[in-house]
Amino acid sequence: MAFELTKEYVEKLALAAENRDTETVRTDLSELFAADISVVLKELDGPQAHYVLTQLDTEKGAEVLAEYEPDDRRELLRYFDSGEIARYVNILDSDDAVDLLKEQPIRIREEVIALVEDREQARFILDLLPYEPDTAGGLMQKELVRINVRQTVTECVEEIRRQAQDVEKVYTVYVIDDDETLLGIVSLKDIILAKRGSRIEQVYNQDVIYASTYDPAENVAELMRRYDLDALPVVNVQKRLLGQITIDDVVDVITEQAQEDIAAITGVSEEVEEDDSVWKITRSRLPWLGIGMIGSLMAAKFLGIFEHDLLLMVPALALFIPIIGSTGGNVGIQSSSFMVQILSDKSGISGGELWPRMLKILSVSVLKGLLIAVFVFLVTFLLLAHPLKLAMVVSISLLGVVLLSSFTGTVTPILLDRFGVNPSVASGPFITTANDFLGYSVYFGIADLLYHL
Amino acid sequence: MAFELTKEYVEKLALAAENRDTETVRTDLSELFAADISVVLKELDGPQAHYVLTQLDTEKGAEVLAEYEPDDRRELLRYFDSGEIARYVNILDSDDAVDLLKEQPIRIREEVIALVEDREQARFILDLLPYEPDTAGGLMQKELVRINVRQTVTECVEEIRRQAQDVEKVYTVYVIDDDETLLGIVSLKDIILAKRGSRIEQVYNQDVIYASTYDPAENVAELMRRYDLDALPVVNVQKRLLGQITIDDVVDVITEQAQEDIAAITGVSEEVEEDDSVWKITRSRLPWLGIGMIGSLMAAKFLGIFEHDLLLMVPALALFIPIIGSTGGNVGIQSSSFMVQILSDKSGISGGELWPRMLKILSVSVLKGLLIAVFVFLVTFLLLAHPLKLAMVVSISLLGVVLLSSFTGTVTPILLDRFGVNPSVASGPFITTANDFLGYSVYFGIADLLYHL
Repeated sequence: MAFELTKEYVEKLALAAENRDTETVRTDLSELFAADISVVLKELDGPQAHYVLTQLDTEKGAEVLAEYEPDDRRELLRYFDSGEIARYVNILDSDDAVDLLKEQPIRIREEVIALVEDREQARFILDLLPYEPDTAGGLMQKELVRINVRQTVTECVEEIRRQAQDVEKVYTVYVIDDDETLLGIVSLKDIILAKRGSRIEQVYNQDVIYASTYDPAENVAELMRRYDLDALPVVNVQKRLLGQITIDDVVDVITEQAQEDIAAITGVSEEVEEDDSVWKITRSRLPWLGIGMIGSLMAAKFLGIFEHDLLLMVPALALFIPIIGSTGGNVGIQSSSFMVQILSDKSGISGGELWPRMLKILSVSVLKGLLIAVFVFLVTFLLLAHPLKLAMVVSISLLGVVLLSSFTGTVTPILLDRFGVNPSVASGPFITTANDFLGYSVYFGIADLLYHL
Repeated sequence: MAFELTKEYVEKLALAAENRDTETVRTDLSELFAADISVVLKELDGPQAHYVLTQLDTEKGAEVLAEYEPDDRRELLRYFDSGEIARYVNILDSDDAVDLLKEQPIRIREEVIALVEDREQARFILDLLPYEPDTAGGLMQKELVRINVRQTVTECVEEIRRQAQDVEKVYTVYVIDDDETLLGIVSLKDIILAKRGSRIEQVYNQDVIYASTYDPAENVAELMRRYDLDALPVVNVQKRLLGQITIDDVVDVITEQAQEDIAAITGVSEEVEEDDSVWKITRSRLPWLGIGMIGSLMAAKFLGIFEHDLLLMVPALALFIPIIGSTGGNVGIQSSSFMVQILSDKSGISGGELWPRMLKILSVSVLKGLLIAVFVFLVTFLLLAHPLKLAMVVSISLLGVVLLSSFTGTVTPILLDRFGVNPSVASGPFITTANDFLGYSVYFGIADLLYHL
């Protein structure tokens, strides 16, 4: 069902753009949805994409621009003059218009706003510009349908007819009083079902969930997910209705959050895509690898202390360096991802009872550590036939490593979260490397102790 | 704005439930949304939760059940008899009803279906039961508003009035012909804006995106995300309209997918929550740790080959075991997560051009490997003052390890994807352990070669 992009299609379109062949361009794109056109245009070079986009009617062109990724859009719009951009900004939803303008240099941004024909739209944009992108204010659009509580359902339908021209999708009608205070909502379905003569007062729903402009985007996403909302009104401190957030924007927030978490865990520092340059892709991975390198080189320096002593006396100690390293890493990742899950789940009992929770996490790690230690002791001593002393050093160290990595894996996400850093970073290479290092210290510490008894 | 659950609140409610104090229970819960009541009930024991739920009116009770996690719901419903369950199933949306019934033992499932009063609902449920949960068929609900293309807008409004009683949220009206073939859609907004006398034919939109019953859930999510849809119609091979999928269900799919990916990467095999038992939490982590253990013990066995030879001759070789292990792991995770991202992005050019893509991935790894090798050579030889030969062994091995782990990290997700396994698993402990092992082989292989020249 989804549109499939082929190389032939792109080549044909690129050729038509080069030849300024309006007819072919229009016919080729007429059947496509805006989201698909944006995918096609990404395959063309800047001047070609500029030509193609200007051949579409302005409304469709604006839709296409709304579908672009920020980086690609900034790149594309370098080929447009301020007047052209203003024509699209004029009819975009105000939230999309602001996103687009925030990507532009300030000079161009101001030129474009001055050129926007619809003065209400320009006012909307100026209202929205100050909000931080990752807050409810940064996600909201000004377009919405509102109705005064003292009106009737018949008047409401008229009002919807009048206002709905500017609103792309009408999910809900917001009920306000004379001061524009949000009182409640009434769904389109309720309006259609209501008797024509009834008053809004009689049919509207006062149980309304709303966000404040400064609420973080992730809380907005959680609210809309938990209460299955299609649209969420945004109010200021006086509960005055300022805008609404629609579910499609929040779906994007949820998707991006998940990608960020995975990038943090897998240690990719910069967002890259397949068609980025070899150097950009390589660069995005170097910082984390570099941290890993430096950590491991420090470990090498540290282990060097034992090179002419323990390692010469018991070379077999080297054989278990891998198991110490990987156990520390794996246990740390598991503990931290569990903690991240707990931190992100805001539906449970809030605060309180820190000690019982910590005790439980401790029990899990003791149990896990004992099981691992006993298993590895048996394999090392009985199956691999290493001396008793070595088997003891390895298994006692593993118990220590499990306890230690569980501790760091649990505490680090809490600290990161408190300092406003994405706690998923705690599952990334930085903490893993630190855990490895801790593990080797425990291992050689215990070996030193037992072999010099 | 969101509801905050406190311990005092739960204790008060539990006491009221014990004392069969209907008045307090009803007053306490009257202001809460269904999603919040489900959070409260999870804190009570089974019989208490059963009592509280039966004190709510059936409609609210059904909403609360729809908000439950599958495991918790199965646990809770053990305290309900089939007649009680049937009353809720009777009014749930058909997709939620089927989810609930699929969690029940077959005997109870059949009893409940037989007891459902609304025979249309029972038929809906029997229609939906056969579909796999992770497909469009498994996500869809039968409730929707449809209108014949030959009717007028006025008739459509009447039809919506009639049908909307059963449909919780009306997003879109589906336009069909006499054979129930899906022809297009018309939004509630369009209906409100249309002139009363117009015919559906004149106002409906033929560009409709739809899914087939067997489409995988992740494709459905991608379609709805890409085209910003609130509802997606589901058809059979003859394009007959069978049901619809609403955005709130898809938001849950996206959230769950992200959690699954992260669980796969961090090696947690079974979904656990904070309030699960110590044993269950421990158990969920053991399979992956076990694989790590066995891999590392095999590595120990393998390294044992060099214990009385290379390691005795050059004990310093042991110092760089950590850097070999962690580099293999980190590079493998980065490559595989990049590949997973490419595999999940279905919007780009499909198929074709395998070789240029592979060449690019190869270039990135060669560049990455060379940078790392040169850096580590300089640090080892100049800063840590190790012999030239050792520095060469370490840096050549690192180049080999980077190339090898990039290769496995790239190929494994493709193979897993082809065999229908979640490719994110490739970033998990299994592949990491395999990469470690490969890395040690390369390291000692090269050392063996250079030191026995």
